[in-house]
Amino acid sequence: MTTPLQWTSYVPGIWKTTIGAPSDLSPLAFIGREPKTEALQQMGEAPFPFGSGDVAIEQKKRGPLLSVPLTASEKLYGLGLQFMKLNQRGRTRFLRVNSDPKQDTGESHAPIPFVVSDQGYGILIDTSRIVTIHLGSTVRLAETKKEQIFDRNNQKGQWKATLVSERMEFLLPLEGADVYVIAGNNALDVVRRYNLLCGGGALPPRWGLGFWHRVPTLFTDKQVAEEALEYRKREFPCDVIGLEPGWHSKSYPVTYEWYEGRYPNPKQFVADMDREGFRINLWEHPYVSPEAGLYEKLLPLSGSYTVWGGLAPDYSLEEARTAYREQHRSEHLSIGVSGYKLDECDGSELTGNSWMFPAHAEFPSGHDGEQLRQMYGLMFQKMTSELYREEDKRTYGLIRASGVGASSMPYVLYSDLYDHKQFIRALCNASFSGLLWTPEVRKASSAEDWVRRMQAVCFSPMAMLNAWGDGTKPWSFPEVEHIVRHYIQLRMRLLPYLYSAFAKYHQDGTPPFRAMPLVTGNVQNESGAVSASAVKVDTVDAAYGGNKKKEWDDQFMVGDDLLVAPLFAGEQERDVYLPHGRWFGLESGETYEGGGVVRVAPGLEQIPVFVRDGAVIPMTPWRAHAPRQGEQMPLILCHFGEAEGSGSLYDDDGESFAYERGESVWRKAEVKRSADGSWTGTLSGHEASFPSTFGEVQWHFGLKKLP
Amino acid sequence: MTTPLQWTSYVPGIWKTTIGAPSDLSPLAFIGREPKTEALQQMGEAPFPFGSGDVAIEQKKRGPLLSVPLTASEKLYGLGLQFMKLNQRGRTRFLRVNSDPKQDTGESHAPIPFVVSDQGYGILIDTSRIVTIHLGSTVRLAETKKEQIFDRNNQKGQWKATLVSERMEFLLPLEGADVYVIAGNNALDVVRRYNLLCGGGALPPRWGLGFWHRVPTLFTDKQVAEEALEYRKREFPCDVIGLEPGWHSKSYPVTYEWYEGRYPNPKQFVADMDREGFRINLWEHPYVSPEAGLYEKLLPLSGSYTVWGGLAPDYSLEEARTAYREQHRSEHLSIGVSGYKLDECDGSELTGNSWMFPAHAEFPSGHDGEQLRQMYGLMFQKMTSELYREEDKRTYGLIRASGVGASSMPYVLYSDLYDHKQFIRALCNASFSGLLWTPEVRKASSAEDWVRRMQAVCFSPMAMLNAWGDGTKPWSFPEVEHIVRHYIQLRMRLLPYLYSAFAKYHQDGTPPFRAMPLVTGNVQNESGAVSASAVKVDTVDAAYGGNKKKEWDDQFMVGDDLLVAPLFAGEQERDVYLPHGRWFGLESGETYEGGGVVRVAPGLEQIPVFVRDGAVIPMTPWRAHAPRQGEQMPLILCHFGEAEGSGSLYDDDGESFAYERGESVWRKAEVKRSADGSWTGTLSGHEASFPSTFGEVQWHFGLKKLP
Repeated sequence: MTTPLQWTSYVPGIWKTTIGAPSDLSPLAFIGREPKTEALQQMGEAPFPFGSGDVAIEQKKRGPLLSVPLTASEKLYGLGLQFMKLNQRGRTRFLRVNSDPKQDTGESHAPIPFVVSDQGYGILIDTSRIVTIHLGSTVRLAETKKEQIFDRNNQKGQWKATLVSERMEFLLPLEGADVYVIAGNNALDVVRRYNLLCGGGALPPRWGLGFWHRVPTLFTDKQVAEEALEYRKREFPCDVIGLEPGWHSKSYPVTYEWYEGRYPNPKQFVADMDREGFRINLWEHPYVSPEAGLYEKLLPLSGSYTVWGGLAPDYSLEEARTAYREQHRSEHLSIGVSGYKLDECDGSELTGNSWMFPAHAEFPSGHDGEQLRQMYGLMFQKMTSELYREEDKRTYGLIRASGVGASSMPYVLYSDLYDHKQFIRALCNASFSGLLWTPEVRKASSAEDWVRRMQAVCFSPMAMLNAWGDGTKPWSFPEVEHIVRHYIQLRMRLLPYLYSAFAKYHQDGTPPFRAMPLVTGNVQNESGAVSASAVKVDTVDAAYGGNKKKEWDDQFMVGDDLLVAPLFAGEQERDVYLPHGRWFGLESGETYEGGGVVRVAPGLEQIPVFVRDGAVIPMTPWRAHAPRQGEQMPLILCHFGEAEGSGSLYDDDGESFAYERGESVWRKAEVKRSADGSWTGTLSGHEASFPSTFGEVQWHFGLKKLP
Repeated sequence: MTTPLQWTSYVPGIWKTTIGAPSDLSPLAFIGREPKTEALQQMGEAPFPFGSGDVAIEQKKRGPLLSVPLTASEKLYGLGLQFMKLNQRGRTRFLRVNSDPKQDTGESHAPIPFVVSDQGYGILIDTSRIVTIHLGSTVRLAETKKEQIFDRNNQKGQWKATLVSERMEFLLPLEGADVYVIAGNNALDVVRRYNLLCGGGALPPRWGLGFWHRVPTLFTDKQVAEEALEYRKREFPCDVIGLEPGWHSKSYPVTYEWYEGRYPNPKQFVADMDREGFRINLWEHPYVSPEAGLYEKLLPLSGSYTVWGGLAPDYSLEEARTAYREQHRSEHLSIGVSGYKLDECDGSELTGNSWMFPAHAEFPSGHDGEQLRQMYGLMFQKMTSELYREEDKRTYGLIRASGVGASSMPYVLYSDLYDHKQFIRALCNASFSGLLWTPEVRKASSAEDWVRRMQAVCFSPMAMLNAWGDGTKPWSFPEVEHIVRHYIQLRMRLLPYLYSAFAKYHQDGTPPFRAMPLVTGNVQNESGAVSASAVKVDTVDAAYGGNKKKEWDDQFMVGDDLLVAPLFAGEQERDVYLPHGRWFGLESGETYEGGGVVRVAPGLEQIPVFVRDGAVIPMTPWRAHAPRQGEQMPLILCHFGEAEGSGSLYDDDGESFAYERGESVWRKAEVKRSADGSWTGTLSGHEASFPSTFGEVQWHFGLKKLP
C-alpha cells in the first residue's frame, strides 16, 4: 500500500513531513538550534524538487519504506563520515554508529541519514534510531528490465554486478520519523541549506585553527610543560596541548577529576601554560567511575547496563545534563580549560566487543540503548558547547561520534583507523553532511609517510599530532624536520584565510573544506558539479568484474581559492583534477589550465596546492600561536596570477560570541589592473564597533607562487 | 518483568520451550530430519543443567531477552562458522548471514545461534530471523562489581577491557522463537546431542573424500577432459571435477541449462568423464535468468525484488521447490551429475552491495527478506540432497550459506576470504555447530604458501583446488610438485580412516574434524575439555591493552587418533598442544609426551601430524580415485607405537542409502602384545549382507611413522 505524502514548507527551500509517530528524542530537536532563516531566505525560493506522488511511503512489516525516484546517471553523496567512497549510488547504507568502520557498510563514527543528489536535492531523516538506505541497490521485480541483463560468460564487457535501479529506498524506524526534502540548483546548494537548517556551520575560536599536540597519556604537568616549550624553542607553532586519560584520577571508567599524582595544582598548570600561549584540552569518555564525585548523583539517572564498569548516564534527562555541566564548569572551565576530546561515545556492539551498552539497555527517560548510542556523540557536543556558550567563550574540540544536526557544533571527528587515503576521503565526505574531520597524525612508517601526513593535516579542519600512545613529536624524523616546520608555519600564515572560510560556513553554510562534487558556482565557466566520470578515468579490476571509476576523492577545496591534492607515501607523482580556469602551484609557481587532469611531481618538500588565478588570499607572518583576544597581527594580502580578482576577510574578536551580537565584519580585498599594467589593491575598512585584529597591511600582486 | 520458563523434555538430554509465537518457517522444521532418538538414548539421561528460574525471559521493546547465568571462568564456543576466535566469551554476536565476514561481529556465511559451554550445556535458538547474542559482553548496572574495576592509568596489569559478566543475553526476534537446552558432561557431549537432534552428521559418498578440482569458468568439455587426464598422467588422485558458471547458457543470473557452445553434448561429456573415474559437480546460484526455462513457472512464486536481474524464488513454497527439483532432476541428475556447488545464497546487504534482495522484500508465502536470506542456504541444501536421496544416491557438494540443523546435510562451506590462519580456525569452529568447512586452495603467494595450503586442505572435509579464476593446477609450482602429490596420495591412503570418522559423525554425532576444546574422553587421563588457558600461553598486545591468550585454534583432531597442526607460510616451526598420552609424528617418527606444548620444525616437506600411541589406522594404497560401488581395495591396518590398542573400520557400499536399511558394518581392529613382545592383530569379520569394500588385509605393528 503506497500512501501519498503531505509536505509542509518548513523554511525556504526545505519541506517536512512526519511519518508515523516518532520518538520525542531526535537529533534536530535535541540539538535545538534555530534554522538560519535569514540566510535561507537570501538563497531564495526553490521549487519542490519532485513531482506529486514521486516520493512515496509503503508500510512494511519491518517499518515504513520511503521511496524516491532516481535518474539513470544520478550520483548520490553524503551519509555522514564515510571512508570508502564518495558516490554511494548502488550501495546499501546501514547507518549504525560504529567505532570500527572497516567495511563499506555505511556504519561509521558519524552515520547520517542525509543523501545529497547531484540532481540538486537532498533527503534527510531526523531520527534517533538506525535507518537503512538502499541507494539504488535494490531492483523491484516489477521494474527489472530484461535489456539490462547481460551474460557474464559471453558478454563480459557489458555485464555489470550492479544493475541500474530506478529508486532509492529508506527503511525507517518502526515508529516512524521526520523526513525533510531539501532543494537546490546543485549539490552545494543542498548542503548549504542543510547546514543552515542546522543553525549554520561552526565558527571555531581563532586559536582552534592553530596547531594541536596531544601528549602521552601518563605525562605529568612538568613533562607537558617541557614538551610544549620545545615547540617554542624549535619554532614550531602550537596553540593547544591535549591531555589524554592520565589526567583523570581514575580511568577507565573516568572521574572527570584531576589526578593529584600528575597534576597537583591544575589551576596553576593551566595558567602557566596559558602564559606561554597554550590552551589545554582534556580527553574524556562517557562512562562514570564509581569513584567519581558525580557517581551518586548520576546513578539513578543512568542506563541499566554499565560500560567498563562505569555508569552510562541518560543525558536525554535535563537533570543528568545539569550534573555533568556543573561538575565540568566548576572543575575545568573555571580554571581555564579550553575544551574537550570526547572519546568512545561511539562504542558499538557491532564490532563484537563489550565496550558499549547493548541496544536493549533501558534508560530512566524511557529511551533505549539504540537511541542513546545513536545520539551519545551529539549529546556530549551539545552539553559541552553550551557550557562554553554560557561563559561567552568559544570552544573547539574533538568528538568520536556525531549525527544529524551537528553542523553548528564546534567539534572535529577523528578515528582509530589510520589509512591515509581513507583519511583524506573522509575529509572530502564530511563536507556533504555538516561534519568536520581531522586526518590526525600519530606515527609513520617512514620519514616520507610522516611528511605526507603532516602536510595534509595542515590543510584540514584541525592540524594535530596525537602522540598519546606513540610519543611522537613533529621533529621525530630529524631529516624532514624542516619540511614539517614549514607546513605548520604555513598553516599559521594562512590563519586569516582559514578563519574567513569558517566564517562563511557559519554565515551561509558553505563548508570550509569541500569535496570536488561541491565545486560549483565558484568555478569559472562551470555551473554544474564537477563530474568524476566526465574526465578520463582509470579502470581497475574490482570484485565481481565491475569497473571502478576514479573518483576525485583524494583532493579537496580549502575555502574558495585553494585546491589541495595530497600525495601519499610511496607516490612520486599524481593526477589532479582542476576545475575550469587558470591555476598556479601555490609553492611551485607553475601555471596550469583547468578543466581537466594535470599530473604533478612536486618532490617530498611540497604538497600540491593550487591557487586560482586572480585569488586574493589573506595571510599573516607565521607566529607561535594565534593572536589573543585584542591582540593584533599584520595582514598580508597575496594576489595570485594575471587576472583581476578579490578576496574576503572576516574579522571578529576570535574568542567570544560577540560576533552573534553584531561585532563582526567582512572586508573585501579587490585587485584591479591599470591601463599601464600595474596593479592596485583596495581593502574595505574595518567599519565595526570592535578593534580590528589586523595591524599593518601589506600587498603582493601578480604572484605566481607564495613569497 | 522476568517470566519463568516451562521446559519440556524433548529427547533424552534436550529440553525445549517456545517463546512468543514464532514464524512457521524455522530451520529445524524446514530441514525436517527426525532426531536420532536411539543414539540419544544410548548417550543416556542427563539432568537439566540449570536450577529452576536460572534461565529467564524478559520482554523488551526490541524483543524477548533470554538470559542465562555464567560462571566466572566459563568458555563459550560455537555460533556457526566463525573466523576470528574459538572462545567467544565476552563478545557480542550479531548472527546475520553475511557473504563477506571480515570483521569479528558474529556475521558469517553460516551464523548459528547455538552456544556450547565448556561447563557442559548448550543453548540453541531455532528461528529464521536474526538473533543477537551477548556472550558475557554486557554487565547490568545492578550486577556491576566495584572490586572488578581497576584504574588503567595506575593499575595497568589488572585493568581489563572486558569485565567479567555474570550472564549471557539472547535478544530473540520480536515474534519469539523456539529455544532448546542441551545437556552434556562436556562440550563434546553437547555437540553430539545437537548433531543427533538434527538427524546425525552427514555421511558423504566415499568419492566425496577424494580430491576435487574446479576448472576455470569458461572451460569447454574438451579442456575439462584434458585437464582431468593430466591428473591421471601425473599420478595425482582426483575424484571430482567442478564446473564453474561457464556451463550455464546464461549467467549471472543463471538458467541451470547447459551452454551448447561449450558443452554440445552434456550427457556424453558426463559419461566420458565417469569412465575415467571423475564425477561432475555443477556450480549454480539462486537467481533465475529471464532466459531460463524455469522462469515463467517461478515468476509468480518469487520475491518482490530481483538479484542481478534474476528471480529470487520463494523456496518456502512447495510448488517452487518442485519446479526447481524437476528441472534439476531432468537436466542434471538424469545424466549423472554428482552434485552442486551452491554459491551466493549468502549475499548480504550488510556488505553494502546490491547482490541480495533487501530484508524488507516480500515473498508469496508471506515470509520476508530477512527470513529468506537467513534460510536460503538451508533451502538449497535440502532441495538438492532430497533429489539425490530420491534416487538412492548420496551427494556431496559445496554451500556458501548454512544455519541451524545443517548437520545431516552433505555440504561443505567455503568462502571468498583467503587468510590461511582464518581458514584453519574456521575448520575448528565449524565442529561446534554441525558444519563442515574446506580451506580450499585457489592460488598462492609462493611455493611455500602453496605447499602449506595443500598440506592442510588434504586433512579437511573436502580436499579441493578451486582454479575457477586463477587456472592453477596442483603442479603449478613445479619445484614442490612432489610434496603436493605426496599429500593428495596420502589423503587417498587414509580413505578408510576418514570414511569411518564420517560414519561415526552420522551414527553418534561426533564431528570427524574437531577443535581442541572437543577433545575429551579420548584423551588419556583427562576427562574435561582441553583448556587453552591451562597451558602456558603467549601474550601479545591487543587493542585496549588487553592480553590475548593463545587459543589452540590452529590445530585440530581428524577422527579420534590423528592431530593435525598446520604450518603457515613464513613459519619454520610452531608450538603444538598435545593432549595427555604418548604421540608419534606420523611422518617424522619422533616420540612426544602429551599433556603440554611441544615445538616442531618439520621442514617444508611435512605438515605436523601426530598419531596416538596404540592407534590402529585403517588405510589403503593410494589410488587415482575412490573405489566404485562394488569395487574392492586392499586394507592396510597400521598400528602405531608401543601400547596395545584398537581402531574402528566402517564399511558400506559407499554410494547409496543402503546403510540406512541395515547394509553397513563396523569392524574392530585390535592389537595385543604377547608375553614375548610380539604383536597380534585381530580384525572382526565383515558380517553383513553386502559385499565388503576391502580385499586383501595387511598389518603393520608398532610403527613409529607411516611406512
